Amino acid sequence: MSIKRLQNTLQQLNEFGYSDKGMNRLAYSDEEQAALEYLMNEMTKEGMSVHRDAIGNVIARREGANSDLPAVAFGSHIDTVYNGGQYDGSVGVIAGLEVVRMLNDEEVETKHPIELIIFACEESARFGVATIGSKVMTGNIQVEELWTLKDKDNISFEEALKARNLDIHSISQAERPQDSIKVFYELHVEQGKVLEFERKQVGVVSGIAAPTRFEITIRGQAAHSGATPMWLRQDAFLGAAELALEIEKAGYLEEAKGTVATVGYCEVSPGAMNVIPGEVTLQVDIRSIDQPSKDYVVHRMMSKISKIQKNRDLTIDYKELCDEAPVKLEGEIIASLQESCEQLHVSYVEMPSGAGHDAMNMAKRFPTGMIFVPSKDGISHNKDEYTSMEQIMDGLKVLKEEILKTAEVTSLCLARGESK
Amino acid sequence: MSIKRLQNTLQQLNEFGYSDKGMNRLAYSDEEQAALEYLMNEMTKEGMSVHRDAIGNVIARREGANSDLPAVAFGSHIDTVYNGGQYDGSVGVIAGLEVVRMLNDEEVETKHPIELIIFACEESARFGVATIGSKVMTGNIQVEELWTLKDKDNISFEEALKARNLDIHSISQAERPQDSIKVFYELHVEQGKVLEFERKQVGVVSGIAAPTRFEITIRGQAAHSGATPMWLRQDAFLGAAELALEIEKAGYLEEAKGTVATVGYCEVSPGAMNVIPGEVTLQVDIRSIDQPSKDYVVHRMMSKISKIQKNRDLTIDYKELCDEAPVKLEGEIIASLQESCEQLHVSYVEMPSGAGHDAMNMAKRFPTGMIFVPSKDGISHNKDEYTSMEQIMDGLKVLKEEILKTAEVTSLCLARGESK
Repeated sequence: MSIKRLQNTLQQLNEFGYSDKGMNRLAYSDEEQAALEYLMNEMTKEGMSVHRDAIGNVIARREGANSDLPAVAFGSHIDTVYNGGQYDGSVGVIAGLEVVRMLNDEEVETKHPIELIIFACEESARFGVATIGSKVMTGNIQVEELWTLKDKDNISFEEALKARNLDIHSISQAERPQDSIKVFYELHVEQGKVLEFERKQVGVVSGIAAPTRFEITIRGQAAHSGATPMWLRQDAFLGAAELALEIEKAGYLEEAKGTVATVGYCEVSPGAMNVIPGEVTLQVDIRSIDQPSKDYVVHRMMSKISKIQKNRDLTIDYKELCDEAPVKLEGEIIASLQESCEQLHVSYVEMPSGAGHDAMNMAKRFPTGMIFVPSKDGISHNKDEYTSMEQIMDGLKVLKEEILKTAEVTSLCLARGESK
Repeated sequence: MSIKRLQNTLQQLNEFGYSDKGMNRLAYSDEEQAALEYLMNEMTKEGMSVHRDAIGNVIARREGANSDLPAVAFGSHIDTVYNGGQYDGSVGVIAGLEVVRMLNDEEVETKHPIELIIFACEESARFGVATIGSKVMTGNIQVEELWTLKDKDNISFEEALKARNLDIHSISQAERPQDSIKVFYELHVEQGKVLEFERKQVGVVSGIAAPTRFEITIRGQAAHSGATPMWLRQDAFLGAAELALEIEKAGYLEEAKGTVATVGYCEVSPGAMNVIPGEVTLQVDIRSIDQPSKDYVVHRMMSKISKIQKNRDLTIDYKELCDEAPVKLEGEIIASLQESCEQLHVSYVEMPSGAGHDAMNMAKRFPTGMIFVPSKDGISHNKDEYTSMEQIMDGLKVLKEEILKTAEVTSLCLARGESK
């Protein structure tokens, strides 16, 4: 039975890098390498041709009736953060492998080739840069940027590649042309609580939000909390409080567009009970799949900064830390995924992805679809991350349906009545 | 000339414990001891009888025509915080000495004895407890509390006393009966910006505010800033922001009563840009000379805590760190000080003291008055603390006038036409 085989594969995969504190299977590590060898062997057993590209992405191919047609691709990653979970990334890879096994069991032949991809270095945990494999595959990175990267043990990106028999000067060879992939699909755990809360089996991802981030420094005047009347104060923390609430309000106003805005960091100086705060630093993270919506939140934040400066006699400086463009996924693919859900009686909700994924890069070059399955309590990047096998199977069913639709089951196969 | 002599005394005093980073003349230290010896010598030169009481307060007495009458006392302290200023405390002591010198110059005889007091251990810097000398003098402390105190070098309060030939088991002997002092006056730097802002020469202190302090812990749920929509959040920092603004508002509403309310400390956990704050700790300092006003601010804070818990689905716990009773000074003395200001054409404003002082303890046993002189930019407990000699002289004139009125210049003296 599929579910048993799926569970078994996940268990075997998660023996590589397992510890009591969580999974440690970092990009290009020996643990990841061992896991990849296990999976490559499984893929070979299924008759796929397997190769590793110049950046370390593993690409396993099942030929179609017409090998010259663009492939229908799907996959995710198996590298983890430090003390990470057992589902982030891995779910998309083992589900992809299970889809191939099912197609073999069912003797399904597709017109288009299909490809299962395990992306290299999706997590930023080791080198500080995320989704490197998919960035290189889609030409979304200046490869020279990678030359200077080092991990916390001072191992360079170049050395890490070398340990895997990869050459930093050749990595551009991993870039693939637009006509090589018809559609790319990624199945991934949500890493949030929306599906759980909405009681839906899968999320059909409408787009991948990208962060715009600011560091904001608010300067007032530190003074004695007892000897300074209210009207003589320039309290930097109260300015920060007003700003944080406005940022929240702006996020709420744009909620319908899936926009979120967060003040996650606040440092108060001097930070003593009997001293009025003289300086506060905030860090703000704004995400949306809709650029105008993100711009509107930034606009409201800026207007409020002006008002607070004036009303509270504070000086407020800001620094934009990043401003990445969000990726909207294609409406046609979203509609097709929704249709598949309905056909399969899998409940779904259309939702943005707040976190970045390889699908975000793939979408810049290839039509792309993304499917979420629930994360228990929204926990992720943590050993307590959990998604049940049944929940994974719901997403897998939708993924398989989409692959068959897109890769086009051959008439021979349909004549045998074996599809689906 | 008085001002020259005053300046000279202050300079000499501040050679003891001086450093580039500020004054370090901690309670019971060798530096303080040397400074006290200098001052005791100066006071002896002025014909005063000088003794040190059982807690280390220095009391210098100038006899009156009737030695049996209660004394008119005045003074302050000369101990400093770490890297403190040259004016906090010292101004009241050197001004008191100058008043005595002036009375001697003018051959003024008073009916009541007058006493200049240098209080021991006013600053909490060394042992964590403030105004120990005046607390013991007025029986406002359980002396056993002092037995366990240690400084940061692990020197016990007992050892510190011993170094000054004082015995911790005898300190209660420093307590003085109610009929020993007719009125106590303290001249002190404001440590705030009110006088500077109001362009007044002195502050007539209406009362001494005492702090009510809380530590407040707000618990929500940490979650991914990208993957958690606005409506699924339990953001502890936003609860903290709302609470801080309400505390400010309550302070403003009670402004007419000199009440102040401050959130000086805020710690956000986990404190990462891409994580919604799961827990925030605030420290709140509320001060007033009016207990009902302080109670009202606390009441508003508590109501807001309930509302925030409910509206934001947060858990808020609070711990009262202290709740000291404010001291209102006697209306008659305030009126008399104001009258003196008017007679001397010294501009004044009635104002509360937000910081604690020895006068606060003295007021619990003896009628007490307090005079503030300006602090440049409100700076205090810092090497940049500054009050000009002219500004000190304004306060000194008012102090002298009050002492003469209260100690009652003898008819002999008045006949010679030498008072004032």
